[in-house]
Amino acid sequence: MANKKLLLLSTGGTIASVVSDEGLVPEESGEQLLQMLGNVPYDITVKDILSLDSSNIQPEEWKIIAEAIYKYRHDYDGIVVSHGTDTMAYTASMLTFMLQGIDVPVVFTGSQVPMNVIWSDAPANMRLAFAAAASCAPDIYLSFDRKVMRGCRAVKVRTTAFNAFESVNVPPVAEITSDGLVIHHQHNHSQQTCVLNTKIDTNVSLVKLFPGFDPRMLHAMAQNDCHGIVIEAYGLGGMTYIRRNVAAAIGKLIRQGIPVIAASQCLYERSDLTKYEVGRQALLEGAISAHDMTSESAITKLMWGLGQGMDVDQIAKFFDTDVAGEVTLK
Amino acid sequence: MANKKLLLLSTGGTIASVVSDEGLVPEESGEQLLQMLGNVPYDITVKDILSLDSSNIQPEEWKIIAEAIYKYRHDYDGIVVSHGTDTMAYTASMLTFMLQGIDVPVVFTGSQVPMNVIWSDAPANMRLAFAAAASCAPDIYLSFDRKVMRGCRAVKVRTTAFNAFESVNVPPVAEITSDGLVIHHQHNHSQQTCVLNTKIDTNVSLVKLFPGFDPRMLHAMAQNDCHGIVIEAYGLGGMTYIRRNVAAAIGKLIRQGIPVIAASQCLYERSDLTKYEVGRQALLEGAISAHDMTSESAITKLMWGLGQGMDVDQIAKFFDTDVAGEVTLK
Repeated sequence: MANKKLLLLSTGGTIASVVSDEGLVPEESGEQLLQMLGNVPYDITVKDILSLDSSNIQPEEWKIIAEAIYKYRHDYDGIVVSHGTDTMAYTASMLTFMLQGIDVPVVFTGSQVPMNVIWSDAPANMRLAFAAAASCAPDIYLSFDRKVMRGCRAVKVRTTAFNAFESVNVPPVAEITSDGLVIHHQHNHSQQTCVLNTKIDTNVSLVKLFPGFDPRMLHAMAQNDCHGIVIEAYGLGGMTYIRRNVAAAIGKLIRQGIPVIAASQCLYERSDLTKYEVGRQALLEGAISAHDMTSESAITKLMWGLGQGMDVDQIAKFFDTDVAGEVTLK
Repeated sequence: MANKKLLLLSTGGTIASVVSDEGLVPEESGEQLLQMLGNVPYDITVKDILSLDSSNIQPEEWKIIAEAIYKYRHDYDGIVVSHGTDTMAYTASMLTFMLQGIDVPVVFTGSQVPMNVIWSDAPANMRLAFAAAASCAPDIYLSFDRKVMRGCRAVKVRTTAFNAFESVNVPPVAEITSDGLVIHHQHNHSQQTCVLNTKIDTNVSLVKLFPGFDPRMLHAMAQNDCHGIVIEAYGLGGMTYIRRNVAAAIGKLIRQGIPVIAASQCLYERSDLTKYEVGRQALLEGAISAHDMTSESAITKLMWGLGQGMDVDQIAKFFDTDVAGEVTLK
């Protein structure tokens, strides 16, 4: 059997960083990464498409990465994207929407320590990513520290530890054990057609509620060209309504045609606006529940939905739809 | 030996909630909670000071709770505050600053399920809180699901599970085991004097960075009477500086006298602006590191500091000071 043909798209990040006077900066090419990695049993082609710290990876770069994946996807059995960890969950989430019906495994990975450091996690993470790209079903994944997660469910929860990412509200798709890559469950996307759609509206805001939050800030955002807002509310989605009436402010925005998504600032578990009075007030005003989505998925889903020209009602329906595994609906 | 004298200050929350047509609403009094709890080996006095869902507990309520604790603290061996879980970490964090040098154990607790439900976690949580108030050293704590945490380190991370809270970046102070309350380590505040200082400035913002974030939003906030901002940046504190120059926007705010605190959107571990170029750019512009503080502690510390009339330089020094265990400095 011939080796699987895999594509490595390198975009920079810690994994490709070297020490400079300005701190760590991404300078290694994908080819250099591959040389340092040593022997892997795949036929790997490298394309350097970006060389950025992922704090600088933005909507413009999402399009570049999505277009590269779309263009090359039928030339390879799987694609690995090396990426900085800081915004990797955002990129993986957005690409889930930009590349719906993806028909090849796409695996994002990175590392907490540069590849050229002896104790780096980069070699293990890259090997895992290649193995996942060679073995998993078509989908967008993020692999890190022995775990393969769905990209739209991954969150960076630790700033320095090797186990930086967690799969939130769904178990990992696969894990590396001494028996090899054990695939727990993966989605079956038989006969799907991949559609590239990179139209997004980035004029959105992500707000975290705190006691004393002034609802006028929401209006200030609306007046500054903000077309949609994700609010990380309390617990199941509760919002203040005494004195500082956040729920009423949301109602005003909704009536102005600005959709407001209620997510939870709790990392784990779902939001449910129906359970407490403080959630129902927001629901009555038209707040749209993010259910158990990550904030990364919620903000990128909102950008993508607005980019398609969806109005408030259409956004509400869109958030009650499981597009690609990003949300668990009851 | 006479029983310890403890005070229960009840403020509402799920623990005191009953089912109504509008969802769960807090209606039980502290006395009712105590009756449902059954026998506890302490001499407990109850005072109902509030009856609110904690999504509605705001700066005005922080003052009421702080004043009650300050007023009654010498009449009891310890104080328990029953509180909704949604904003309990914010209240416990703020009270750490409002009641510096607290000279009695103060223990916040609540529950995920109302006290009057058979499978409620409320009885165990209240028993733990009373035991901690009777045994721990003077400090502000939050106790939940067998763990006693420092109030200023607690974060609500799960919306519905019983283990809703985690002690972030420091281990819990104490835990309930079958051997009783095992105290791991607690701060020694011998001979300290408690100072009540409730002066705060609530005109602050808490912003979570995401790819595509428009730095003009920061200016919009400043123009809307915002006196200080906490930014949840990426990873160790990285911020975009290409195209959308968040670091430069921060510099402008700093020069206008508006302090900007850089925290991490990663739940665990510290931010460190010195390690990557994307952090150094922000540091050069004057961003102030939140180190390993929770966002709950960072935003309340900022409100308290501004309330004291601190300017940007004083806020920077204040954030490099461990006031009451809220931050680990190198």
